Amino acid sequence: MKQIEPIAHFRSPLTSKFGIPRQSGLVEELRGRIVFEEPYNHPEALRGIEGFDYLWLIWGFSENDSAAQAPLTVRPPRLGGNKRIGVFATRSPFRPNGLGLSCVRVDRVEQGVIHVLGADLMDGTPIYDVKPYIPYADAHPDARAGFTDDTGWKQLEVDFPDDLRRHFSAEEQTALVSILSLDPRPHYHADPQRIYGMPFAGRDIRFRVSENTVYVVEIV
Amino acid sequence: MKQIEPIAHFRSPLTSKFGIPRQSGLVEELRGRIVFEEPYNHPEALRGIEGFDYLWLIWGFSENDSAAQAPLTVRPPRLGGNKRIGVFATRSPFRPNGLGLSCVRVDRVEQGVIHVLGADLMDGTPIYDVKPYIPYADAHPDARAGFTDDTGWKQLEVDFPDDLRRHFSAEEQTALVSILSLDPRPHYHADPQRIYGMPFAGRDIRFRVSENTVYVVEIV
Repeated sequence: MKQIEPIAHFRSPLTSKFGIPRQSGLVEELRGRIVFEEPYNHPEALRGIEGFDYLWLIWGFSENDSAAQAPLTVRPPRLGGNKRIGVFATRSPFRPNGLGLSCVRVDRVEQGVIHVLGADLMDGTPIYDVKPYIPYADAHPDARAGFTDDTGWKQLEVDFPDDLRRHFSAEEQTALVSILSLDPRPHYHADPQRIYGMPFAGRDIRFRVSENTVYVVEIV
Repeated sequence: MKQIEPIAHFRSPLTSKFGIPRQSGLVEELRGRIVFEEPYNHPEALRGIEGFDYLWLIWGFSENDSAAQAPLTVRPPRLGGNKRIGVFATRSPFRPNGLGLSCVRVDRVEQGVIHVLGADLMDGTPIYDVKPYIPYADAHPDARAGFTDDTGWKQLEVDFPDDLRRHFSAEEQTALVSILSLDPRPHYHADPQRIYGMPFAGRDIRFRVSENTVYVVEIV
């Protein structure tokens, strides 16, 4: 048994599980911040980070911390949710110890806060470690990747009318379109009339999905 | 505060900190095994792993778990040990929460045990998670890597006489030469007469280092 404590928390415009990209890097424009806890919120602890393009974050799946034992197998959404794979052959959040691993791009470091791009962490996520990305040890671009090799993500078209876009900065719009194109609906939902809501940057994005298009219908 | 428990322990011919490669992948021939704890030692939990070339291990620096607070800065051996870098800009073992991250190559899966290559984990290391390596999210071969970009590891020549080699298999010999070439001496040691000892595969490797050559002098 080992006890670990958050060294930082993540800040993201995505304040619910809804819309969180399924891996880091999928939504490159998505901004977030690593805000450190005492005593690590000191610039000294981050000295040298600006020389790295990417960082690793080890974090906690805080939303599904339950006493229940993690199952030995899971059904990855990527396989349509009907094929079982061993939990250690997936990045599923439902796993022993509930630890997540993400690679994020460094945007800039400012007053003990690291601004990053492309994270798949929800707002408020506890972070247990930050490490630099070192290509000679970490980069294996030609590695075989099991079931993920044969199954791409379906990309949806996004219909986002100009009068609804104006609530957001140009960069937020780009991130939002990218998030919606990845289909943030819960699995197996296929009702074209149903209106879904997804919190983003302090507003609620209402949308429906028909055929291969996401229609943004309201910003609340 | 979060409590985590080992799901597995690592088995390596390297039974002390001495000789452990400084990153995963540096000694590709080095064999090791991930031996799972109950209930994860069931083949179901690993179903699909054989389709991946690499795995991530999140593990604990068990040798230096101390109550002492981790420092905000460290002096990486790669910089000669005299320049201070923020702890989160390094892979130093002396870090908050004492978690390590390593990428290992999958050799084969057998009866709930994963045989791997190239690990930088000591024998007995507790492992808290195993995740598949997914190139589209994890591989950034051209990423800038801060201070590690400008500083290579010095490679030593290895003099390993045939009559001492015979204690080991051909593969063990290759791994051993690779480990020794990375200079497993503690830093700042430069006495060419001094005999060092390093446990490997149940034996003690005695060697000395003079100029740019490691001389294996005895196997005990």
